[in-house]
Amino acid sequence: MARLATDGAAVVRVVNPEGQAPVCLVCEHASAHIPPELGDLGLAPRDRMSHAAYDIGAEALSLEMSRRLHAPLVLAGVSRLVQDLNRPPEARGAMPDQVETIAIPGNRDLSPAARLVRVEAVYDPFHTQLSEFLDRFTTPPALVTIHSFTPVWHGTARPTEIGLLHDDDPRLARAMQAAGTTGFRVDLNEPYSAADGVTHLLNRHGTARGLANVMIEVRNDLLGDAASIDRAAGALMAMLTPALAEVQTA
Amino acid sequence: MARLATDGAAVVRVVNPEGQAPVCLVCEHASAHIPPELGDLGLAPRDRMSHAAYDIGAEALSLEMSRRLHAPLVLAGVSRLVQDLNRPPEARGAMPDQVETIAIPGNRDLSPAARLVRVEAVYDPFHTQLSEFLDRFTTPPALVTIHSFTPVWHGTARPTEIGLLHDDDPRLARAMQAAGTTGFRVDLNEPYSAADGVTHLLNRHGTARGLANVMIEVRNDLLGDAASIDRAAGALMAMLTPALAEVQTA
Repeated sequence: MARLATDGAAVVRVVNPEGQAPVCLVCEHASAHIPPELGDLGLAPRDRMSHAAYDIGAEALSLEMSRRLHAPLVLAGVSRLVQDLNRPPEARGAMPDQVETIAIPGNRDLSPAARLVRVEAVYDPFHTQLSEFLDRFTTPPALVTIHSFTPVWHGTARPTEIGLLHDDDPRLARAMQAAGTTGFRVDLNEPYSAADGVTHLLNRHGTARGLANVMIEVRNDLLGDAASIDRAAGALMAMLTPALAEVQTA
Repeated sequence: MARLATDGAAVVRVVNPEGQAPVCLVCEHASAHIPPELGDLGLAPRDRMSHAAYDIGAEALSLEMSRRLHAPLVLAGVSRLVQDLNRPPEARGAMPDQVETIAIPGNRDLSPAARLVRVEAVYDPFHTQLSEFLDRFTTPPALVTIHSFTPVWHGTARPTEIGLLHDDDPRLARAMQAAGTTGFRVDLNEPYSAADGVTHLLNRHGTARGLANVMIEVRNDLLGDAASIDRAAGALMAMLTPALAEVQTA
């Protein structure tokens, strides 16, 4: 377990832990950090800081949402190429050797032992600490994860600007969609949905506990600087604030 | 001039304008924003949010430095592919049609009229406002620009982690290097130098006014999340604080 911790980066960081909002924000694809023991995972140079390594702009957006909501935010400190915290650890996609057009040679043919090192160093502590943090709320919080996605995927343009994804519990996603916002195209279960296996975290920590939950996806070309991120945060607040009031008083 | 302003994004944004430090920070490659009129400049999808469009992590690093120094920060709000504010507007590289391995079709064979639209919409207001802002200081500030660079360039790895670049006035860069820091490899005039034409902004606003100035370059794989950016900011503060004291009392 210590093998991936030698660079001292935290696998989990909680910002605003005393935030009083009945919301727990999570950004599990916040970081492009790869522990030095793993080098650059053999990535082509142009891919090292690409969307394969992290959700571009998502950390900054989640920090802004934490500030606006006065809500705690749980951030991952390791790239999803080391361990995708939103996949079951046994899933192939948990340590992918290919993301869209991008090859990750350092994840090819990983031995069970090599996978276990990462699970013990990253997956287990992250999910354990997130679970323990959720236990601390006296009022059940809503669970809101913040992600970003690319404008084009395998050659197909994605018109969605903000996606609201849900797993088995659609309350919060539907309430946000109903609240609406201006200036952005908002779609339910786009550009992914639960059928793509992207709701592992929501399921494990949200639905399983009976917490209202939603996975928010913002197109990353709309997150190209802090001013853009402020605009996106404003749009999300316009949807999330009434939606939270609705699901938490229902 | 209005043609590129219709999306409402500010070309210049000043953060912490009342900051009392005798320093003006500038991050002219902060933004990946491309005004909608220009589409995506024909970029391949994987390149839209790449280092060609902006200095990955530089905006967040400059915001953190502004906070720690209590210094004003001048941010650009438009991608350098629209207008590289650190190049003379007549230079080919001011609206490049190629950055390293990345082609920018939307910048190919630009007419003089098309170039002029961008110069009037982006270059002129940015530099005019920066100049006017510098006029407001009662004590001459140091001018410090914040950039990031890729770990590999045209196939060659770059061992430098923090580069300190100077133009004709080397005082601040040398004083920072002499101050030193721990945990990072710091090099003078790496991975670029004035000979590469990258000191346009320093020259125009720093050396020409007699202001001590430096261009700071941080390797972008060290800026992969907010925790990493905090560490880089700590290293820069350890060099910059004594160096500022030295050049400003000399």
